Amino acid sequence: MVSSRGVRHDSMRARNLAVVLATIHRSGPHTRAALAESTGLTKTTVSSLVADLLEAGVVTESGTVRGGERGRPGVAVSLSGHRVAALGLEINIDYLAACVVDVTRDVRLRRVRPADNRNSDPARILAELRDLVKEVTAEAEAGGLRVIGAALAVPGTVEGGVLRSAPHLGWRDVRVEDLVDLPFVVDNEANLAALGELWFGSREPDFLYVSGEIGIGAGLVVEGMVFRGTFGLAGELGHVVVVPDGPTCRCGGRGCLEVYAGQDALLGDVASVGELVARLESGDGRAREACDRAGHALGVALTSAVHLLDPGRIVLGGVYAPLFRWLERPVTEGMRARLGQMRGTPPALVVSGTGGDAAVLGAAGSIIQKILAEPAQMLGL
Amino acid sequence: MVSSRGVRHDSMRARNLAVVLATIHRSGPHTRAALAESTGLTKTTVSSLVADLLEAGVVTESGTVRGGERGRPGVAVSLSGHRVAALGLEINIDYLAACVVDVTRDVRLRRVRPADNRNSDPARILAELRDLVKEVTAEAEAGGLRVIGAALAVPGTVEGGVLRSAPHLGWRDVRVEDLVDLPFVVDNEANLAALGELWFGSREPDFLYVSGEIGIGAGLVVEGMVFRGTFGLAGELGHVVVVPDGPTCRCGGRGCLEVYAGQDALLGDVASVGELVARLESGDGRAREACDRAGHALGVALTSAVHLLDPGRIVLGGVYAPLFRWLERPVTEGMRARLGQMRGTPPALVVSGTGGDAAVLGAAGSIIQKILAEPAQMLGL
Repeated sequence: MVSSRGVRHDSMRARNLAVVLATIHRSGPHTRAALAESTGLTKTTVSSLVADLLEAGVVTESGTVRGGERGRPGVAVSLSGHRVAALGLEINIDYLAACVVDVTRDVRLRRVRPADNRNSDPARILAELRDLVKEVTAEAEAGGLRVIGAALAVPGTVEGGVLRSAPHLGWRDVRVEDLVDLPFVVDNEANLAALGELWFGSREPDFLYVSGEIGIGAGLVVEGMVFRGTFGLAGELGHVVVVPDGPTCRCGGRGCLEVYAGQDALLGDVASVGELVARLESGDGRAREACDRAGHALGVALTSAVHLLDPGRIVLGGVYAPLFRWLERPVTEGMRARLGQMRGTPPALVVSGTGGDAAVLGAAGSIIQKILAEPAQMLGL
Repeated sequence: MVSSRGVRHDSMRARNLAVVLATIHRSGPHTRAALAESTGLTKTTVSSLVADLLEAGVVTESGTVRGGERGRPGVAVSLSGHRVAALGLEINIDYLAACVVDVTRDVRLRRVRPADNRNSDPARILAELRDLVKEVTAEAEAGGLRVIGAALAVPGTVEGGVLRSAPHLGWRDVRVEDLVDLPFVVDNEANLAALGELWFGSREPDFLYVSGEIGIGAGLVVEGMVFRGTFGLAGELGHVVVVPDGPTCRCGGRGCLEVYAGQDALLGDVASVGELVARLESGDGRAREACDRAGHALGVALTSAVHLLDPGRIVLGGVYAPLFRWLERPVTEGMRARLGQMRGTPPALVVSGTGGDAAVLGAAGSIIQKILAEPAQMLGL
């Protein structure tokens, strides 16, 4: 009986910590009296919960505000960006990336290491990533931050802590869950990039985020939540069929979008996206044609995606962000011609507000989300 | 103050009526004592709520069961199929349909009236549907049933009580909300057919229902809920692009699935689906080719749909149900060749358990669902 009551008390306290933190996160600085009023908890309980949250460094006392049922001035408790932080990580085909984001969702550090991870040895890449983690964590800690958890974005399908299949990396069934000695999650890069766009980009609640990389993925956000499908495999836009008897794709299918609009197809013999942009800016006809071809295929695949998923808007990210100026017209024209009669106007096509960093930011953001939702568990309270 | 307390009392009573009815619906017959135990309500409150539900005819007293905290035998209260019922309606391109379903989800009546509704006058068709409603309602009432509400399935996009666009009917912006003098909803036929499959067919919680008619629609069910997208327009499988420069589709696009696998493409100059089945059974080569062509296109479009939506399984319904034997191989082969490498095995392809009636059953079922969720409002308690 004693242990059962103990558990019940702990879980109630955990729930109340989450309620208090959520109130501050959602509605800004509160006095303890105002928190008691908003949450329906007693002032004594609120004071004790706030003391724990202060101790953990996730909130701070900041000046005086009016609050409480009689509007008396009191000390305001607000979210603190000075201590608790999360680590975002990404394994991309041609780089490794890391970032540190604090609890207020300020980005404190970003690091990108160019790499050639195609058909690579997982053990070697994971060792390099561990190095990057050490470097970034040390720098964050030197700045007074405490990294509470980490999330990793990978260009492939994920099940539990295992990267099931990442065709461009050439990886299959790679266990990554013990990468760092912290609470850790791994997820598909397009899903995390969609969350990155939600939290660090446009902040709109309804959109399809299109992640243009060597592979092409998509993450659908409806009312602020990622739609994952039945097995967590939804959003594989890169393998939507554009031409049924088209060229063979890496996935084994034929005529997939990736064959026409992936980074390799866009670049051809151009060395980098930066160089492609330079050529486009100088009016290079072949570079323009490459964008038109990719944009046309993207318009076809997005037509199918709009009919099936009905997104609020379409956000182009990854390498499509710097190429947006040249992709916008062919994509929009293709969609308008095909969708116009059934929809009036097709969904708006916009560029990602995160540059190319959506996935690694979304990874860190997903840990911040977990801290805000489960502070007791994540902060050891 | 009095009216505010009154409202509060009513809304608590409404909620408690729903809790009691849901308990009986989910877990079968209960004594009043067992209901009090399950719901945490007092026996006096339960007795009063049950009296109201009995009066409304939505539950009945049926024999004696053991129940309550001391396991004493008592009179069991169970869902009653004898009184409360819902009307399902469907406007299809080549028929009107109606059914009556009671609260236990037994189908009590079905009527189908063949019709040619292509490019028809909405006023005339709605008048015919009103006739059908009168006929079916009278028959249900003669059997002692009380029809509480109606839902209408339409082959097009719906917004509120308005059918926005049904290209095969040739209807645009047709107001249907005042069709019957009952609580009434109108929804897209594929969404309602998916719910029909959920409640009256396979009863699996995760699948993509494919509605093969003159138009082709789909309804995605994830964990027992229909995924509708941002504007309620998700699941337009018929306009997924199969061949980007293919023949013009009714929707204004090109090479849509409907052009290759809609009922018109399947039939060619064959008069009816029944005749097509007869020819297939007699080994007719041209009929077989028509199924192969449609199945091939369906395999391409479903590959795109699986990559984007990640359904648990795929259920073929509508005219695809009687043709399933001949469609199964080309569809499965196409999906396996394209999806195999990324998914191991593609989602299972199965035939609808509702025959061709999924939409009209789902329509009636959606009203039953509403009665079970909001008995006070729907039954006037």
